[in-house]
Amino acid sequence: MWGIELQRDSEVPLKRQLYMALSERILNGTIQAGEALPSTRGLAQELKISRNTVVEAYDMLAVEGFILNRPGSVTRVAEGLILEKQTPPAESPRDGRPAPVPLLADFRTGHPDLRLFPRYLWQQLLKRTLQEMPDAHLGYTGPQGLPRLREEIAAHLLRSKGLSANPEDIFITAGATHALNLVADLLYEEGKPICTEDPCNRGMLQTLLNKGYPVNPIPVDKLGVQTEYLQDRPSCAVYVTPSHQFPLGGVLPASRRTALIRYAREQSSYIVEDDYDSEFRYYGDPVAPLYAMDPERVIHIGTFSKVLIPALRIGYVILPGKLHQRWRGLRTHSDVQNPPFEQAVLAEFLHSRKFDRHIRTVKKHYGERRQALLTALKAHFGDTWRVWGDASGLHLAVQFPGMKFDEAFVKHCISHGIRVTPVEYHCIHKGNHVDKLLFGYGHLEPEDIVKGVAMFHEVVMRFQGE
Amino acid sequence: MWGIELQRDSEVPLKRQLYMALSERILNGTIQAGEALPSTRGLAQELKISRNTVVEAYDMLAVEGFILNRPGSVTRVAEGLILEKQTPPAESPRDGRPAPVPLLADFRTGHPDLRLFPRYLWQQLLKRTLQEMPDAHLGYTGPQGLPRLREEIAAHLLRSKGLSANPEDIFITAGATHALNLVADLLYEEGKPICTEDPCNRGMLQTLLNKGYPVNPIPVDKLGVQTEYLQDRPSCAVYVTPSHQFPLGGVLPASRRTALIRYAREQSSYIVEDDYDSEFRYYGDPVAPLYAMDPERVIHIGTFSKVLIPALRIGYVILPGKLHQRWRGLRTHSDVQNPPFEQAVLAEFLHSRKFDRHIRTVKKHYGERRQALLTALKAHFGDTWRVWGDASGLHLAVQFPGMKFDEAFVKHCISHGIRVTPVEYHCIHKGNHVDKLLFGYGHLEPEDIVKGVAMFHEVVMRFQGE
Repeated sequence: MWGIELQRDSEVPLKRQLYMALSERILNGTIQAGEALPSTRGLAQELKISRNTVVEAYDMLAVEGFILNRPGSVTRVAEGLILEKQTPPAESPRDGRPAPVPLLADFRTGHPDLRLFPRYLWQQLLKRTLQEMPDAHLGYTGPQGLPRLREEIAAHLLRSKGLSANPEDIFITAGATHALNLVADLLYEEGKPICTEDPCNRGMLQTLLNKGYPVNPIPVDKLGVQTEYLQDRPSCAVYVTPSHQFPLGGVLPASRRTALIRYAREQSSYIVEDDYDSEFRYYGDPVAPLYAMDPERVIHIGTFSKVLIPALRIGYVILPGKLHQRWRGLRTHSDVQNPPFEQAVLAEFLHSRKFDRHIRTVKKHYGERRQALLTALKAHFGDTWRVWGDASGLHLAVQFPGMKFDEAFVKHCISHGIRVTPVEYHCIHKGNHVDKLLFGYGHLEPEDIVKGVAMFHEVVMRFQGE
Repeated sequence: MWGIELQRDSEVPLKRQLYMALSERILNGTIQAGEALPSTRGLAQELKISRNTVVEAYDMLAVEGFILNRPGSVTRVAEGLILEKQTPPAESPRDGRPAPVPLLADFRTGHPDLRLFPRYLWQQLLKRTLQEMPDAHLGYTGPQGLPRLREEIAAHLLRSKGLSANPEDIFITAGATHALNLVADLLYEEGKPICTEDPCNRGMLQTLLNKGYPVNPIPVDKLGVQTEYLQDRPSCAVYVTPSHQFPLGGVLPASRRTALIRYAREQSSYIVEDDYDSEFRYYGDPVAPLYAMDPERVIHIGTFSKVLIPALRIGYVILPGKLHQRWRGLRTHSDVQNPPFEQAVLAEFLHSRKFDRHIRTVKKHYGERRQALLTALKAHFGDTWRVWGDASGLHLAVQFPGMKFDEAFVKHCISHGIRVTPVEYHCIHKGNHVDKLLFGYGHLEPEDIVKGVAMFHEVVMRFQGE
């Protein structure tokens, strides 16, 4: 009847199949408004299914108003349900890019070594944490994050960077991007731009641009953001990376730090300090956060994506008391909260000091990789290059005076299986840093770095020859 | 010297303490610009610490530009670093509300029973999943979510609701609020409002209001949103709950469903379908999603917060192909992605059909609780009330004709340890639903429901007597 064919081996129950077949035919007009449906007994016999299945399918149609099912009268199709079939848009290739050349040397930035993550230990902590987790933690635990984790983060910031923060001022986020995303909404005032460093992490910049917020770029030199350019430029916030400027690597000197604070006080603006990787400093201790200078004017953002793994999706922001209430409102109505599981395990990981040990371990590895990179560059490029910035983090900014690293160069490299990032990629005003490249090394073994630099050298020579 | 006292039993290393003490004194002017610091040997003797500790503290100060440390000359304090001390704002009580009366009967809505979550089974799946998880999943796995989970969700939607969706069109989110949050940004066009049902979940409404997007409320009756009011009202999106209107409970009839689709096609608008709890239908099968009628015009939002637990922070959205690319950009630059751990376990939970079994189990419990609520209301209030909406979900909407449930009533209840929610709380235009209350029952044991209704009856009687 009406060409209905039911599939007995499908996971979709027969009643649902019948409902779908009938509703589809009502919507496309095969079964017309006012038409009487066959009796449940009749249709059941026709389709060789149980009468009950037909009754249930009719019930579903009646509940949703496809048919009018009055006791004692014939079941009829409701009026006005015809829906013209739309031709679906022609299937376009989901992704227009050609299949990429396999990468032989991938010096991408911002990726920690995932193999160094202490998986077994994490699993054990997770097992225990899950067993001990109170039922209430499976529900809504609030937009601020688990108190235990906030306390452990405060303790860690104090012992590793001398940063003294009240756990009540710490708000857990789903990483640094998420933190900036909410901080921007928190601080933005109509008509006042957000100042950023230039160059500035392009992903973070995009977070601001996606919101349509005006961005005011402030130039960066070897030491970091050039605060003299802030003079007389009002803003609602200044987004900076003072411990290790991204991407150029400068450590912001005290004179500029105090200038930032003075600026924020005068302009009633805020300094948003992104401390994305200062744990990895290879000579000496982590640089002190700007936050300590004025906790009422500096909003400190930290993340566990680089020191542990991106998959955790845990970062944090330290906020002055007057912004707490609004943050809670913003977070609750944007993505509610982080899952508690990763939070609880991370709290335990911090508490047991396994985290401190992990940092020492990976820092040793990353330091060796950095050294391997420097040695290989020296071997292939002699003295034609110099390092920018502090010996810290997961990437190296290198200047090759006289070179020009543009789109064509990047494409040339990619076509030979090598990925490097020009500093220009992160620049808002183009043209000031054309001779600088970024080499991410954290995720690569020393021997891969050595091979990669050799390949890179060849590719550069070939590019210059072309 | 300068009143510096170091604490030997602190977790903050001595060098860091010394750095902090000196930088603080430089910033507040105790140690003045140009002043010479004592020799490392001298200060070490003075403070009874090793000379190396002083050297390291001086290094930290030099890196950050607090002091000028030229070889062969005296170490001097840099210029212009004085930062006026700001008096921190007077400590205001973090939260102005008085300590709440303990709740004896909490009929809040939207909370599943956390004790019904199969914790042990979940732990076992988690253990296995974590062991088998490839290293790459610890890094960035992309804004769309794990393919395995998207396939399992597609399979589940087909077998439970007959909804046929391509896993490529499914995007994992951190729950339904998060989905709406991004969908609103995705669809919003300057000058075109977003239509919502009225009443509409107040939290979801707040998500839209927080963005400053104009909202156009469309009235709701027993059957759901009254589509005739959409006529000639342009919008960029219409947010609806057709399977089980929140909060009034209507199942949207086919005639209004087709009207919605026709409207979206004519206005080039989108219908955003929030299917938050249709798994829990106590008589008959889940209502069919609107999505099936036009996958190019309907954006379907689902969540595991109610059918499993809120703590998972997993929901999903099904998007037409032409919106994929922009969604990826929005998600990447707002909170990047979900953690992979919960995703992988949920995929396994769905795959093993343990999820289907879980739904059957909890539905049985929730059905009994709903029945207990109805029986208790009947026992105490006789025939003075009636149920609104379909027998589905985790809450009941009840009308008490002649009653007026206002702020004063809610306060009266709270002061007697009872929480109920007036439908008016979720209304945009006030005054149309003053005689209706919501009772959430999913998280309460039947005996608590019975006791709670008895208490509620007493409280109502007392309120009417006052």
